[in-house]
Amino acid sequence: MGLDLSAGPAGLTAQLVDIESVSGDEARLAGEIEAALAACPHLTVARDGNAVIARTSAGRPGRVVLAGHIDTVPVAGNLPSSTDGGALYGCGTSDMKSGVAVQLILAAEVTEPVMDVTYVFYDCEEVESERNGLGRLASKAPDLLAADFAILLEPTDGVVEGGCQGTLRAEITARGERAHSARSWMGRNAIHEAAAILDVLRSYQPRQPDVDGLAYHEGLNAVGIGGGVAGNVIPDECVVTVNYRFAPDRSADQAAGHVREVFAGWEIAVTDVAGGARPGLSRPVAAAFAAAMGGTPRAKLGWTDVARFDALGIPAVNYGPGVPALAHTRGEHVRLAAITDCADRMRGWLTG
Amino acid sequence: MGLDLSAGPAGLTAQLVDIESVSGDEARLAGEIEAALAACPHLTVARDGNAVIARTSAGRPGRVVLAGHIDTVPVAGNLPSSTDGGALYGCGTSDMKSGVAVQLILAAEVTEPVMDVTYVFYDCEEVESERNGLGRLASKAPDLLAADFAILLEPTDGVVEGGCQGTLRAEITARGERAHSARSWMGRNAIHEAAAILDVLRSYQPRQPDVDGLAYHEGLNAVGIGGGVAGNVIPDECVVTVNYRFAPDRSADQAAGHVREVFAGWEIAVTDVAGGARPGLSRPVAAAFAAAMGGTPRAKLGWTDVARFDALGIPAVNYGPGVPALAHTRGEHVRLAAITDCADRMRGWLTG
Repeated sequence: MGLDLSAGPAGLTAQLVDIESVSGDEARLAGEIEAALAACPHLTVARDGNAVIARTSAGRPGRVVLAGHIDTVPVAGNLPSSTDGGALYGCGTSDMKSGVAVQLILAAEVTEPVMDVTYVFYDCEEVESERNGLGRLASKAPDLLAADFAILLEPTDGVVEGGCQGTLRAEITARGERAHSARSWMGRNAIHEAAAILDVLRSYQPRQPDVDGLAYHEGLNAVGIGGGVAGNVIPDECVVTVNYRFAPDRSADQAAGHVREVFAGWEIAVTDVAGGARPGLSRPVAAAFAAAMGGTPRAKLGWTDVARFDALGIPAVNYGPGVPALAHTRGEHVRLAAITDCADRMRGWLTG
Repeated sequence: MGLDLSAGPAGLTAQLVDIESVSGDEARLAGEIEAALAACPHLTVARDGNAVIARTSAGRPGRVVLAGHIDTVPVAGNLPSSTDGGALYGCGTSDMKSGVAVQLILAAEVTEPVMDVTYVFYDCEEVESERNGLGRLASKAPDLLAADFAILLEPTDGVVEGGCQGTLRAEITARGERAHSARSWMGRNAIHEAAAILDVLRSYQPRQPDVDGLAYHEGLNAVGIGGGVAGNVIPDECVVTVNYRFAPDRSADQAAGHVREVFAGWEIAVTDVAGGARPGLSRPVAAAFAAAMGGTPRAKLGWTDVARFDALGIPAVNYGPGVPALAHTRGEHVRLAAITDCADRMRGWLTG
């Protein structure tokens, strides 16, 4: 018994949720999606690991990507799915199998789109960046992703969220000199020294720039601190891990330069950085999509895979029926009406 | 082949060092000490676990304890012992088998002391306080330790060190509210809040009180800090572990009260506290000992087991041939002349 793509938005989302697919374990769900789409004569289907790519080839002048990840965070006693009060509850309902259901419905139903469509279903979004299925496709088969515009069906509560901020992590180290804590004045306490690092963070004024018409909001914060040798030792090292979330008018290099400047004089190691994505809503195809979805687009503050499209030169936005605040919670759910509304609006746009 | 108590200070120290006795593994050395002392007709020998207690019962009006631990920190490739340039190298040479050698020499040779002597050899000084052999004896057989004065042969570089400071550890917790680090202003960063705890420590002015004629020097320091949930989360908790070293004019309760006052308004948990010991050098027996050893007595800043005697109402000092700064180092050693000098001075004192 495979997926029933005609079960409607609610029914199809429930089918997808009930096929457990924690990151790394998406083979069964990918197989079901591949089989269901292979039955659609207007689609060409490819498989790469646990990712599935289905394309229309109607010879239209433009092409759009609709992408979504099919993995979930670990199940938290919230499977199988259940319906209550017009909402579907369960692991992955909001993030983002309701979005995947919309993709599948459009893929099956919209046989004559006004522009060609590439539907991408990928694996391992909820884990380390190196395992990300979209990243794998972008590096080994960028042609498969080529398009004028991309939409990621991540949970956005039905609002178009443009671009995303970048994220950088760095370790700032305070040094001191060890001593026995009974003779502390013989040493220099690295934890006490680290207070000056925290002072920099406390007085930092984050930018709130406007980028392509959307208001971003940066942040520079400690996300970790560690120091100490033993209960009777003045410590010689204290490391503060900071996370800089930067608006997409700054490149990854510029972000690193900024953090080095803020912590000038300190020992600093940038441990990882991922650039953001400009919203690109000034491009006609993106503006038309935003207009069709309604509402007022807003900036995406968290980093998402739209940045991977940005890196390929493809403007991308986030738009999906899920609710961001419910993602990764035990009580995760999605309103059934929101799935239907999302599918209807996108169907209308794709069919002109 | 047992211990040869007539081998002289250098030879006996080498014998003791070459019987490995890392904390918890002192059975063989305790057995050798017990057997060697049992052969001395003027001594009554008792054994408790890996502790050995030998007492003279010459009916003198006063009694003194000479105590030393027989365990060492883990061996660091520095056994067996070796002699070079007038010094004996190896694990435990300074801390404190040279002191134990002095105890054994006096125990064997001083058959007619001017006051009765209790020689205590105990286990597990280098590990958690609960395992300490002297603490075990003090709680299960305090009569065995009864005396007018006690000398701990810990390394003091041949200077009488009076009393010891107390030590207290406490955890000061800063609280905040979690948020996604891309929307940090939705939360409150506990690591940033902890900067105020470090500010208190940075501006703290430690006391340097004179107690019974000796100059102590307190200290209040961070010895640990930890906070952070994940690289993308504003943390809701940051814990600073502080260590307060307090002069012996303050009790453990007073020390705890002081730390609570310094961190008034913060969440604080005192995790462990050990009171110090007043030097007691104004008592005639202690003053006479200090005069016989020569030099100018100084305050002991680190906590030592003299506090266990203080708790039994017995004034106690530290005095031994080892060098404190060499303890627990790979290059640990002791000058042979220092052992002989210590043994000679103490023999002279005990024989009047």
